[in-house]
Amino acid sequence: MSIRIAVDLGGTHLRAAAFRKNETEPFIHKKTTSRSNDESIFERLLHLIEEVMPAGEDVSGIGVAVPGPVDPINGIIIETPNIPEMNGFPLVERLTEKLNVPVYLGNDANLAALGEWRYGAGQGHDHLLYFTISTGVGGGVISGGNLLEGSAGFGAELGHVMVKADDEGPTCSCGHHGHLEAFSSGTGIAKYVEARLKNPETESSLRSSANRNATAIAEAARAGDPLATSAYERAGHYLGVGVSSFLHIFNPSIVILGGGVSQSRDLFWKPFEVSLRANVFNPAYLENLVITTAALGDDAGLLGALALVETKESH
Amino acid sequence: MSIRIAVDLGGTHLRAAAFRKNETEPFIHKKTTSRSNDESIFERLLHLIEEVMPAGEDVSGIGVAVPGPVDPINGIIIETPNIPEMNGFPLVERLTEKLNVPVYLGNDANLAALGEWRYGAGQGHDHLLYFTISTGVGGGVISGGNLLEGSAGFGAELGHVMVKADDEGPTCSCGHHGHLEAFSSGTGIAKYVEARLKNPETESSLRSSANRNATAIAEAARAGDPLATSAYERAGHYLGVGVSSFLHIFNPSIVILGGGVSQSRDLFWKPFEVSLRANVFNPAYLENLVITTAALGDDAGLLGALALVETKESH
Repeated sequence: MSIRIAVDLGGTHLRAAAFRKNETEPFIHKKTTSRSNDESIFERLLHLIEEVMPAGEDVSGIGVAVPGPVDPINGIIIETPNIPEMNGFPLVERLTEKLNVPVYLGNDANLAALGEWRYGAGQGHDHLLYFTISTGVGGGVISGGNLLEGSAGFGAELGHVMVKADDEGPTCSCGHHGHLEAFSSGTGIAKYVEARLKNPETESSLRSSANRNATAIAEAARAGDPLATSAYERAGHYLGVGVSSFLHIFNPSIVILGGGVSQSRDLFWKPFEVSLRANVFNPAYLENLVITTAALGDDAGLLGALALVETKESH
Repeated sequence: MSIRIAVDLGGTHLRAAAFRKNETEPFIHKKTTSRSNDESIFERLLHLIEEVMPAGEDVSGIGVAVPGPVDPINGIIIETPNIPEMNGFPLVERLTEKLNVPVYLGNDANLAALGEWRYGAGQGHDHLLYFTISTGVGGGVISGGNLLEGSAGFGAELGHVMVKADDEGPTCSCGHHGHLEAFSSGTGIAKYVEARLKNPETESSLRSSANRNATAIAEAARAGDPLATSAYERAGHYLGVGVSSFLHIFNPSIVILGGGVSQSRDLFWKPFEVSLRANVFNPAYLENLVITTAALGDDAGLLGALALVETKESH
């Protein structure tokens, strides 16, 4: 019986795993650092995939989760902020050439949505929104049982949606102001704290802290620091504003929150829910709506890549 | 050969038409006022449909375009602001009972998107955004060749998407602040003019005008009135903000603008395009993107209802 290979391309680590059909536990799973002085990232990726391709077994397809926009139709990585040497790289062509197996690419947030839908928290929900809230805010959408990709594969960039036009606060990673990501990402939380600390009257334990990333801010909030608390509350508030708009657009039956910041659920969940309730324009959008955290954790990219192969093979 | 019937339920007029398969010109077309002292709206609608059902011909399905949110799964009109007596009305059940023919309901903006896709400006575009800009801002989305309805049919409410959180200006028709509709609808344009005229120093020919609706404001703008001009420019600017977010979400290959305000293209198109270009976070979203006005005009609802029957029968 043929097997499927899933690959998670990360700025720090590369992961690859081989799965038998109808299984979501890999029978081989390898991980390596993305960089080495001896090989290019492509060579490291190729060798890692070869390591999980068992001799004598037929591989039906390889799915690759990429941390950035991809062109899934032509199999090209558009941009990977943490692996700039792969910007514009024709990964599908290069891997197919070497391995002679169908290869499919997807953006990691889109694939995480697909993975959660097929194997995780979203099973049975054909109208699903997935948000990964970490350094940035990424999104993935299942609409009517189909992964939303858009005409060229650039869709579902849910973090880069304007929630506050004319905002003059910190910019989003894309350079624009007022996007959801600028308010509700880990970076947005940290930038808000920095901006508030510029006012010498702001009292906070974070002032003397060497590290003021989202994790450190969460720790300070749990220790009772008012600035840190307000930073997470603000992130949750604007997340509710953004998600309410997405409810009006997609009318999903489930919203799944994943990513590092979503693990600080205790700090932003209540303001998020209050804001969501205040911002939907009709309570019907909240009836029968499940709001939950992601189930697949660090395996979201890998299982999403597996789900991509499965989806492509069933079409 | 069996025929299809399309119905457009409006606050002022009811329209019904009968079409032969593969034709978009009706062979019977009737129109009547929505209200009468002798009959309820449902009775008028039923009689109008009976008038276009030719004796001896088999009717395969009836599609109804409703100006407000519907529950397409259960065939219920949720809310029709201009026909309040039909709120919560089980139209599919009641019509099927009387006529013994499959009946399908859709929101008129969603159906206009479907109509433009099948028969109008959007033919060949499987990723399509449609906006109807008139009293409000309605939307319809074709994503990957499917009409976006959402889990309960409440999706694609593109006018009720936050573009400016914390805004303190005029409210949207839904009562919230900061929605696209509050800025870019005809009502939004008129409310902006009223707000500016409250300042006695604002000079405008509209000050002495008896009628200050969007049409009158358009006429004043074309006559050179600076307040009227700025009202349309502002509407176009925020439309560009909103549409840029929708490009990031859906990555469509075409954006179609319909509705009464879209006929004042000369007054808002340039600021709309400038704002759209300024607000997309990657120029790739504008490559190969067609932006155009609707082709079906007043027939959008009727032809959308026809497209709905066609779509349902082909599934």
